[in-house]
Amino acid sequence: MNQFSLETRAAIEQALRCHTVCLASAMTECLERGGEHVRPQHFRLMMDCVAACHFAADLMAHKSQFHARACGLCAEICDTCAEDCARLEGMEPCVAACRSCADACRGMA
Amino acid sequence: MNQFSLETRAAIEQALRCHTVCLASAMTECLERGGEHVRPQHFRLMMDCVAACHFAADLMAHKSQFHARACGLCAEICDTCAEDCARLEGMEPCVAACRSCADACRGMA
Amino acid sequence: MNQFSLETRAAIEQALRCHTVCLASAMTECLERGGEHVRPQHFRLMMDCVAACHFAADLMAHKSQFHARACGLCAEICDTCAEDCARLEGMEPCVAACRSCADACRGMA
Amino acid sequence: MNQFSLETRAAIEQALRCHTVCLASAMTECLERGGEHVRPQHFRLMMDCVAACHFAADLMAHKSQFHARACGLCAEICDTCAEDCARLEGMEPCVAACRSCADACRGMA
Repeated sequence: MNQFSLETRAAIEQALRCHTVCLASAMTECLERGGEHVRPQHFRLMMDCVAACHFAADLMAHKSQFHARACGLCAEICDTCAEDCARLEGMEPCVAACRSCADACRGMA
Repeated sequence: MNQFSLETRAAIEQALRCHTVCLASAMTECLERGGEHVRPQHFRLMMDCVAACHFAADLMAHKSQFHARACGLCAEICDTCAEDCARLEGMEPCVAACRSCADACRGMA
Repeated sequence: MNQFSLETRAAIEQALRCHTVCLASAMTECLERGGEHVRPQHFRLMMDCVAACHFAADLMAHKSQFHARACGLCAEICDTCAEDCARLEGMEPCVAACRSCADACRGMA
Repeated sequence: MNQFSLETRAAIEQALRCHTVCLASAMTECLERGGEHVRPQHFRLMMDCVAACHFAADLMAHKSQFHARACGLCAEICDTCAEDCARLEGMEPCVAACRSCADACRGMA
């Protein structure tokens, strides 16, 4: 990955980490707890975050002329997801992953 | 899409259709109904199906030497998802999309 | 897909169609012709378009609160891809798919 | 990611790493070098690998009943991609990422 700056590499890494932490949390923690954790708006937001992180990581890996736009949108979705997760028990890993990803992506936007 | 046989085109179309019907059903029907519809094993199976259909469609679009393997696995996951959805109310569109996709993918496998 | 308006259904369909036409064109037409068709900036743009269409389709299927933002970005990427493809031979299906998708996504944005 | 065994976490990490290294190599190294690096069969194999790694990582993150099947197919595609990349200059990072991912996925299959 020497073709990328350290900043870009870190942002790709955070985006993939956030993709996986949110997907895994949704599919295990949220589904197993039920209740508030599977409220439609919450769960959709988590899946939006999963999709946005993957999209932003791929556009960075493409050295796309649109990577800044994708990262800006990703940061916004991650911030919203972090806020929503912070209200619920057991979602600390998700909150942390979303915040780190939002920061890294904002730096690319 | 003239570079593909009619059979391949139909299989790509069924796989994309199944991807979208299952994703949309999970995110609206299942989350809004709750209960059995968000039981972890059921919901994961739907998301497996979403991922497998997308993977199979992409490998067919690549004219990949591995498309038959991806289609075989996709057909199996779709069959399992169709069976599980058939036990639940309101999942008829999902059952139909999974069965059509399984048939089309089996033809490619 | 009755849970979606006709407009949304059409936009999802156009986005998936554009995803597949661009992916298949890149992997067959572009790679087989070579030359201008595999110029880095052109090929990356096609893969950006593939990723953006998939992302927009998934956010629409999620009934995401961010679907309009994803569709706006997708429309912009599709327009740029259509322009770039229009300069090259044999890319007519790609140009048409990108234009239809850009129009449908702009209607959602 | 405490809900996963160390082995699973390592396999998810290797799969995401291989996804990104192969995608970035294809979009920069291969497109910029041209020639053998954009030969259709080679380039498709790299994109198959990108798709298979993403699929396997997602099924592991889902705790899917099909994760072993997805990992088995991913290992096979990664092995084939590593062999093909090993014949070409400048693809060492890709070869290494594919081999590590194939090993980790075989352990899950």
